[in-house]
Amino acid sequence: MNKSIFPFADRHIGPSTQGSRAMLAALGIPSLDTLISQAVPKSIRLEKPLDIPEAVNEAEALAELAAKMGHNKTFKSYIGQGYHGTHVPAVIQRNLFENPAWYTAYTPYQSEISQGRLELLFHFQTLVAELTGLPVASASLLDEATAVAEAVGIAYRHHREKRTRIVLAGDVHPQILDVVRTRAEPLGMTVNGGEIDNTAAAVIVSWPDTYGVYRDHSAVIKAAKAAGVLVIAVADPLALTVTASPASLGADIAAGSMQRFGVPVGYGGPHAAYLAVTENLTRLIPGRLVGQSVDSKGRAGYRLALQTREQHIRRDKATSNICTAQALLANMAVSYAIWHGPQGLQAIASQVHAKAARLAAALEAVGLELSGSQFFDTVTVSVPGRADAIAASAEKGERLLRHIDADRLGITVDETTTDEDLVALAGLFGAKVLNDPGSKLPSSRPAEGFMTQAVFHQQRSETEMMRFLRRLADKDLALDRAMIPLGSCTMKLNAAAEMLPVSWQSVANVHPFAPEDHALGYKSLTDDLEAWLSEITGFDAVSLQPNAGSQGEYAGLLAIRRYHLDRGDDHRDICLIPESAHGTNPASAHMAGMRVVVVACEEAGDIDLDDLKAKAELHSANLAALMITYPSTHGVFEEGVKDICAVVHEHGGQVYFDGANLNALVGLARPGDIGADVCHMNLHKTFCIPHGGGGPGVGPIGVKKHLAPFLPGHVMNGTGNAVSAAPFGSASILPITWMYIRMMGGAGLKRATEMAILNANYIAERLKDYYPVLFKGRNDRVAHECILDTRVLKESAGIGVEDIAKRLIDYGFHAPTMSWPIAGTLMVEPTESESKREIDRFCDAMIAIAGEAAKVASGEWPRDDNPLVNAPHPSGDVLADDWSHPYSRKVASLPGGESEDLLKYWPPVSRIDNVAGDRNLVCSCPPMTAYN
Amino acid sequence: MNKSIFPFADRHIGPSTQGSRAMLAALGIPSLDTLISQAVPKSIRLEKPLDIPEAVNEAEALAELAAKMGHNKTFKSYIGQGYHGTHVPAVIQRNLFENPAWYTAYTPYQSEISQGRLELLFHFQTLVAELTGLPVASASLLDEATAVAEAVGIAYRHHREKRTRIVLAGDVHPQILDVVRTRAEPLGMTVNGGEIDNTAAAVIVSWPDTYGVYRDHSAVIKAAKAAGVLVIAVADPLALTVTASPASLGADIAAGSMQRFGVPVGYGGPHAAYLAVTENLTRLIPGRLVGQSVDSKGRAGYRLALQTREQHIRRDKATSNICTAQALLANMAVSYAIWHGPQGLQAIASQVHAKAARLAAALEAVGLELSGSQFFDTVTVSVPGRADAIAASAEKGERLLRHIDADRLGITVDETTTDEDLVALAGLFGAKVLNDPGSKLPSSRPAEGFMTQAVFHQQRSETEMMRFLRRLADKDLALDRAMIPLGSCTMKLNAAAEMLPVSWQSVANVHPFAPEDHALGYKSLTDDLEAWLSEITGFDAVSLQPNAGSQGEYAGLLAIRRYHLDRGDDHRDICLIPESAHGTNPASAHMAGMRVVVVACEEAGDIDLDDLKAKAELHSANLAALMITYPSTHGVFEEGVKDICAVVHEHGGQVYFDGANLNALVGLARPGDIGADVCHMNLHKTFCIPHGGGGPGVGPIGVKKHLAPFLPGHVMNGTGNAVSAAPFGSASILPITWMYIRMMGGAGLKRATEMAILNANYIAERLKDYYPVLFKGRNDRVAHECILDTRVLKESAGIGVEDIAKRLIDYGFHAPTMSWPIAGTLMVEPTESESKREIDRFCDAMIAIAGEAAKVASGEWPRDDNPLVNAPHPSGDVLADDWSHPYSRKVASLPGGESEDLLKYWPPVSRIDNVAGDRNLVCSCPPMTAYN
Repeated sequence: MNKSIFPFADRHIGPSTQGSRAMLAALGIPSLDTLISQAVPKSIRLEKPLDIPEAVNEAEALAELAAKMGHNKTFKSYIGQGYHGTHVPAVIQRNLFENPAWYTAYTPYQSEISQGRLELLFHFQTLVAELTGLPVASASLLDEATAVAEAVGIAYRHHREKRTRIVLAGDVHPQILDVVRTRAEPLGMTVNGGEIDNTAAAVIVSWPDTYGVYRDHSAVIKAAKAAGVLVIAVADPLALTVTASPASLGADIAAGSMQRFGVPVGYGGPHAAYLAVTENLTRLIPGRLVGQSVDSKGRAGYRLALQTREQHIRRDKATSNICTAQALLANMAVSYAIWHGPQGLQAIASQVHAKAARLAAALEAVGLELSGSQFFDTVTVSVPGRADAIAASAEKGERLLRHIDADRLGITVDETTTDEDLVALAGLFGAKVLNDPGSKLPSSRPAEGFMTQAVFHQQRSETEMMRFLRRLADKDLALDRAMIPLGSCTMKLNAAAEMLPVSWQSVANVHPFAPEDHALGYKSLTDDLEAWLSEITGFDAVSLQPNAGSQGEYAGLLAIRRYHLDRGDDHRDICLIPESAHGTNPASAHMAGMRVVVVACEEAGDIDLDDLKAKAELHSANLAALMITYPSTHGVFEEGVKDICAVVHEHGGQVYFDGANLNALVGLARPGDIGADVCHMNLHKTFCIPHGGGGPGVGPIGVKKHLAPFLPGHVMNGTGNAVSAAPFGSASILPITWMYIRMMGGAGLKRATEMAILNANYIAERLKDYYPVLFKGRNDRVAHECILDTRVLKESAGIGVEDIAKRLIDYGFHAPTMSWPIAGTLMVEPTESESKREIDRFCDAMIAIAGEAAKVASGEWPRDDNPLVNAPHPSGDVLADDWSHPYSRKVASLPGGESEDLLKYWPPVSRIDNVAGDRNLVCSCPPMTAYN
Repeated sequence: MNKSIFPFADRHIGPSTQGSRAMLAALGIPSLDTLISQAVPKSIRLEKPLDIPEAVNEAEALAELAAKMGHNKTFKSYIGQGYHGTHVPAVIQRNLFENPAWYTAYTPYQSEISQGRLELLFHFQTLVAELTGLPVASASLLDEATAVAEAVGIAYRHHREKRTRIVLAGDVHPQILDVVRTRAEPLGMTVNGGEIDNTAAAVIVSWPDTYGVYRDHSAVIKAAKAAGVLVIAVADPLALTVTASPASLGADIAAGSMQRFGVPVGYGGPHAAYLAVTENLTRLIPGRLVGQSVDSKGRAGYRLALQTREQHIRRDKATSNICTAQALLANMAVSYAIWHGPQGLQAIASQVHAKAARLAAALEAVGLELSGSQFFDTVTVSVPGRADAIAASAEKGERLLRHIDADRLGITVDETTTDEDLVALAGLFGAKVLNDPGSKLPSSRPAEGFMTQAVFHQQRSETEMMRFLRRLADKDLALDRAMIPLGSCTMKLNAAAEMLPVSWQSVANVHPFAPEDHALGYKSLTDDLEAWLSEITGFDAVSLQPNAGSQGEYAGLLAIRRYHLDRGDDHRDICLIPESAHGTNPASAHMAGMRVVVVACEEAGDIDLDDLKAKAELHSANLAALMITYPSTHGVFEEGVKDICAVVHEHGGQVYFDGANLNALVGLARPGDIGADVCHMNLHKTFCIPHGGGGPGVGPIGVKKHLAPFLPGHVMNGTGNAVSAAPFGSASILPITWMYIRMMGGAGLKRATEMAILNANYIAERLKDYYPVLFKGRNDRVAHECILDTRVLKESAGIGVEDIAKRLIDYGFHAPTMSWPIAGTLMVEPTESESKREIDRFCDAMIAIAGEAAKVASGEWPRDDNPLVNAPHPSGDVLADDWSHPYSRKVASLPGGESEDLLKYWPPVSRIDNVAGDRNLVCSCPPMTAYN
């Protein structure tokens, strides 16, 4: 009787029973089973139901998860070490963090429908530039540790990979050092102390160090400058509001975490890291960079700059594989800065520092020795032999200190620390809090002169802030308004019940390095997820640590590398990659110390088995791995996949399985059964974590038993080789995936996959007469996506794929993936969450666009003046007095007609000029001397 | 050191220090103090700071409230009695309930910018019509008890107030009976059992009754029909999905609560009540009614129908004073119905009934006697002498039963009841749960044939539902996008930190009739609020029960009435009301059994003191009360208010103070000090509860000590004379006001008032050369709002106030209050929350509109074809091929120019035709026989 009336699967899946029946009829087949048996090779089919607990409804799942996470202890943390208590301003929590208009948006490749989040990321870059004093800041990186690793990568590339020594000047946080070393080792770099000379690529200085202390780095920096060594400063952004900027100290690169700018610690992530560089390093900056450009009418507009990133240009020579940013978290962080303004940030920083200074004075007054005399928020105190006892006593008072070793404790205060907390903290040491002894900072920053841009001064009332966030959101087109049919990106429903727990205190307020028994809720959650994801993929072990798909790839290849090394097969370093692979694949392989050998593909898109055999034979002795994507990047279930895996295994190689297209497999087939040894999953694609407008992502890996010992560890757990700063990466968003799987159950997950395949095949069927569908698989069926060849319109009418993509905006749609994997095509992935109604609306728009192109072909509309080449049409354009176009204003802006049921989406700009933007790169707002 | 860096008051208040300095300069005065001393008479000034705890910041306030509400026990409730457990669908919680686009909207008087919420309320009416079988349903009422009272009022009016007997056929919930009797008594009506003959106005039948039992009402109904007695059915809407409709039984009116359609019990409210009537009673329906009409181009459009409501037409003869609805809650309830559809609702109802039937069978199997054999969800069981013990034992298991008396217990199950619950419940009685014994319903409803309208079938997937809600929200203009400068309605910031607690389990899941020690958190909250509101208003006691301003008025007058009766002054029934009063005042007075005598006003808007003296003298012996609004409805601080109160007191009358304009007084002056004996406050105006698109509201009253014994009581607390169904009315939104006052502190509240006055005076100053400002007070200053005379444009250019209001939409604004209190004027209240920037944008628009009118006056634009008379301009109009207007499309739709900083709001329709809509009233969607 407790059985759910409406199973969640019926809510998650878009088409109704009627809708799916109609789609099957259009395909001329009687049932979903028929379709699946046509599309999916029998040889790979999973013949048993997934062993996953039976689905429960949303109320039950929420109650179960609440009970589970209730086992976490949310004590106040003074552990610090890169993770700080912070107040999330309620206006940001409600209007950004909990608003689907923000979190369901995709990465802003289509700049015209992404002006809101691009603008906010641009402000983020400006903020970082202002804080660090360095002119070029990226739109955020995955976490502090990988940001420092990326900085090291910049230094390595800057020196044309000829200098391999990275010098450590002082103590960075241990998790940073571990990740940097993990990343350095396969590239042949070392990270240690030592001389600063012209064999060193970079020197890393901490500002302040892991013990909270500011050291005098002037000599180090002077030596570095002399020897052409780049200076990388790891700096706390809040401290930067009251101390000298890294640039003023002489840093070439600065990196750090923006977490304490209003993003909860969340057991380690996700948070935005920052990275900023000097002008001359601009072209080496990894990840996303937002630039300002102009649209076709000269309006200012934002877009992703320098999009041809490291891994795309250099592929198997790349030293960064980063594809995404932490857009949602970067946007939270900059919103916090906008909300508080420079004076507010300085006031917060000054208060935090005064608390630390008072505590330090109190401890010194009772004769305790501190690690240093200049600090910001952290006091490291010597208590020989007493650290255990004092930490235990703190814990009794529901406070956690950093337990460095038996003789030392660290105490880091933050904006949530109260006077009562200070009294209690001092009391642990038998000390009494005294008055503020004055600044212990090594330098100060003037109150004026930074963050002078208007945006940091205009949103000081909540009404203004709320409207500012709404205006930006309204400029963008996200899943809450329309389908985002992105091939290979699986933009499915992010259900509200999945998202609610992310706001819970029990999820948000756990420090990643809290003692094990403080995170029993998280333990139970991650145990469940590891078990479920293992079952879904057919593996023996799962690591949830990688916090993006690219990081999963990298972690998977590292496991293979370390497996071979462990067996003494040091020579196995050849990685076979099909030519159709995503650019990230060769980049990851190179970063994992492998040499890439490209395998040819047949014309139909499948891997050329003969070529594979030949290459495997040729490199048999040194074969490390094959990387494959399945279904292929062409959206097809290749028949021969098991044979392919067998060939690789025969030659001693391991099979790396790219899980980008896992949404076509869940419940139907398992990578582990097919022959993969390791596979990454994108929880933000297949398992409902929203894309957040360009991050966060979560990219766990599953492995067979023999690779399990080589999964990433963590220095705080006594192991290492981590790929992320926190043991469980972006832990606080794992509840989203937990909720999804718990509410779907095994049967629901399988049905979702089947419906995703049905939706894709229905689109292929409806559009095939207008756009040839490339790369169909067996029985003429596609998998969960289809590739539409738009080159027919180029030939007939000169209409390019970009014209179609931009014209779709006028129809109220986000464009499909453009020109990937084949130039001139659109790859469409509807996912299971779109209803037949929305899919039909999309197909109708695509057909109408073909009709418009026909008018161009026939000469009715000129090739250089038609609604396609002029698309998209913002309101300012179509309301112009002067309208000389050969098509009407209504055709321009309401091509689907007026409908009560829909609301017109208006792009705020016309087509953005990318070339102009890259030619004249503007990626932060110049300071102002005056504002209103 | 814990002192807030940015006090919340700085966030709540719109203008920055710079902004307010510039506004003061424009007024030519040096300081806010100067302004206040100019505007507010010294004689009424409060000369001490408010005795309210010092402000804390949002994190501190949230922590304090969380701790407080943590003292509530959220046991599972089986108390029923009109309040039921329900699952709030997460998609509705996040996208509607927690979305400022929905909750910050105003009542939809300006229909063109309210199409979204009007459409959803229209669906609500359709839902109610479908469930009850009655064709005309209102857009919701305040709660179930007042809805039944309103039904009684309809019957009374239907019989032209000649039949005064209301017959009770069976047992309604005690709180309903109490409220109906409270309301009936002053009008001379009785509510009892007895004969059904032509002395009876109506008979009330319960479907089912308070013990959960369906009685056979056929004889009663037959007799009623024969004697022309109206049949009022009180019916559970969930049960109606599986039983015969009230219409089919012969009911003329149906009423009940929609709470269990996905709205949490929240300690009693707010929830939407429904009311539906037969066609011939349409014009008697109180409250809000949404009707479908057409716009100027023939597009379908919604608007409030029959707006000239009871209290406006009949004023002192009115028997209803209801002004608002529970729009937000009605919209939640209909969203729940849209989400589940008719089959879903029936499935929920069937499950609920099966649980009750199984429990009943179990109890009967152990020989217990039940109250009846036909029931829906409630089992009332006889346990002579054992009720206390069993209820106590249930409580130990964290379950609450309804303790009817020493011998009887009630158990009501709902959609949240699980199998485990049933087993435990049966176990309390030594019984074992058996299989479903089959239906115990008195009738059944076919599975097909109701709720066949498309809207109840198209939003079944979450993606569709989310987009449906977003689309509707986007059609509307709410506070999250622009200023809503409504005179007398105080549309101020509803801060996110104030709203967050409303979603907490500890707030949402407490039954209003739970034992006292289960609601200790609420007790502490209401104690705080009563104390703070008493201090703010200068009274000795406060009742939080009235759940709308009108209900506060009524409760205040009832207290006066009962005070006079208690002193034996039965003859004191004259209520003096200034002619400038809001229509609700005389209606409330009449409902409280008083006779209204109108007092004249001077030309400047002030009460004519001579006339007041004369009327008070004339009616001295019978004087009951004076009702005044202060500052006056003309937005002026009258100088003589203390004299006015003294005159009334001299003649033995009581002063009722309408708190509509309290936002001009808080911290500066107190009604209690001025001479008022009772005052109502609108927490949804002055104290930050959002308007919700037309409700909820909360209208507490404060009284002097001598009136305290006559505040509303509650039957469940052993008293009575309640004006709302629940003891604390809309309890679950009281945390909003608590948070506001706690974060503002006394000083912050006072500063808010001062800034509200500054903002209003600045607008008056900026606009006075374009629109004469009527009714200025002392020193030529207005209070917190100003009245702009637009008749100058009528005279010069034929441009009416409505043209200006609609043209403001093109500029992206909600219009001010139109033609009240003086026809042809706009009353503007900016509140303290609007920044100078937004206020300037509004003033610029008003000045631009005056400029447009000048072009009409000069003949540049014809009187019948200009952007004012054609406003507003939806996109379909301005994109038309044919554009013959003498002004450009850009002038039509982008009159403020294109701005990066703003985003154009597009009205979905052009001007709605109100006359056509009232002439051909359509207030629900006809059933469909087929749908997609």
